[in-house]
Amino acid sequence: MGMTGMSYELDRDTTLTPRGEEGGRHLFDAEVSGGWSIGTAPNGGYLAALVGRAMGEALAMPDPFTVTVHFLRVAVPGPARIEIEIARRGRGHGTAVARLIQDGQEVLRALGTFGDLATVEGPTVVRVSPPPLPPPDACEAGRAGPTSVLPIAERVDMRMRPGAVTWTSGQKSDDAELAGWARFRDGRPTDALSLLFFADAFPPPVLNLEAASSPWVPTLELTIHVRARPAPGWVRAVFRTRALVGGYLEEDGEVFDETGALVAMSRQLARLRR
Amino acid sequence: MGMTGMSYELDRDTTLTPRGEEGGRHLFDAEVSGGWSIGTAPNGGYLAALVGRAMGEALAMPDPFTVTVHFLRVAVPGPARIEIEIARRGRGHGTAVARLIQDGQEVLRALGTFGDLATVEGPTVVRVSPPPLPPPDACEAGRAGPTSVLPIAERVDMRMRPGAVTWTSGQKSDDAELAGWARFRDGRPTDALSLLFFADAFPPPVLNLEAASSPWVPTLELTIHVRARPAPGWVRAVFRTRALVGGYLEEDGEVFDETGALVAMSRQLARLRR
Repeated sequence: MGMTGMSYELDRDTTLTPRGEEGGRHLFDAEVSGGWSIGTAPNGGYLAALVGRAMGEALAMPDPFTVTVHFLRVAVPGPARIEIEIARRGRGHGTAVARLIQDGQEVLRALGTFGDLATVEGPTVVRVSPPPLPPPDACEAGRAGPTSVLPIAERVDMRMRPGAVTWTSGQKSDDAELAGWARFRDGRPTDALSLLFFADAFPPPVLNLEAASSPWVPTLELTIHVRARPAPGWVRAVFRTRALVGGYLEEDGEVFDETGALVAMSRQLARLRR
Repeated sequence: MGMTGMSYELDRDTTLTPRGEEGGRHLFDAEVSGGWSIGTAPNGGYLAALVGRAMGEALAMPDPFTVTVHFLRVAVPGPARIEIEIARRGRGHGTAVARLIQDGQEVLRALGTFGDLATVEGPTVVRVSPPPLPPPDACEAGRAGPTSVLPIAERVDMRMRPGAVTWTSGQKSDDAELAGWARFRDGRPTDALSLLFFADAFPPPVLNLEAASSPWVPTLELTIHVRARPAPGWVRAVFRTRALVGGYLEEDGEVFDETGALVAMSRQLARLRR
């Protein structure tokens, strides 16, 4: 990635080795890292960034505009094969499908449309605001996730709104909303690709609810719209769940960059594990 | 669908003729109807219902849980081939990819996870409410879409909140939100599959904004979460756009059934045509 003698963790852990084409598919070898896990499961946003990078390379387009990932099996740290099929490559947008395969089994299927955010032109009217937050140093450090085994916390510096995370104290609340700051600990600048990661990096706000008795909330599907290239520093994000229906829930995210610009919106469908 | 001597328009216009399997793909012939068009373009929600039905049949699972469609080219009324590839069929969920092909060109690619909403069990906490609306007969009839050529309006009975649609009067507003009622004119009961249609049936609320100078807002990607099987009557829905950035916009929908139960949430990424 143009660096000499070093690389950032996310770039290293999304390194792709091209293996040519087969039946119209672009093949890549990759290594799923254990460094972005929650418990033993590699984080879904990390996997979205991994296959997102492969889709962008196969399409030769720099920015994800909209990426949807359906998670089929739990990934494991170790070798993986990524297969990219290009559905259409037009002038402004290109669309591709990605499969991530480990041990002969498909771990996820993704569908994404890419383009170049630097060329986007048109009117801007934004009615959504960054969540009110004290500065990062006045927030609560730590991801405060659903398990104490959090390799991801060593990679990402998260600062949550004081009092927002209620389940760690055993005090559930009625408010399935979490807001906070996040950035990479190793100084990697936030860019469009990394927004695929940040869109699933926060703990699930549904855990604040009394109804969430288990800390595990596996994602069935995650969709991220990247709306602009972010400034390189902190992201400032809010995630909320408004409807838990029969154990299934949406989680909506709004991600702003350090300057307060809206840079991504995300939605996932997840399920409370019983 | 078990009826003798008649069928509803949406069922007739999503009729699938199985053509066997080829290379692991389930093939279907279909006929894209011109009856659900806006201007000359078949509506995206209708196309989502068409490929959604094919995905459900190939998976042998009754209900869409989450379906994402990327629109690659404008569809045309006439023959189409649908190809379904099953990514995974588990006990509770199945995931499939759909392609819709016309004249040898791919019109859309979709990715969906299906299951059986009747078997869903778990806690329910819903913080989102149906949009306040007068009864259907006190609302404004008509889709009031972006063009006067609206075959879709002959199929769908829409009743908008009085005053909500501002662009037809030339009076733009600051409020990119539309709420209203909708149902099929031929009495077809609303079901889970038809929510894929209703999620894209309303006119784009962004047209209320001064910044929207063209009436055309093509969808790049549409994702629908079906959260419950609806009661058979009216749906009551609200759609809003909160962020128009460089001509790209999200449109979020919340769809309730006649009893006020949340039955679907949708989000699309679209673009103002210049």
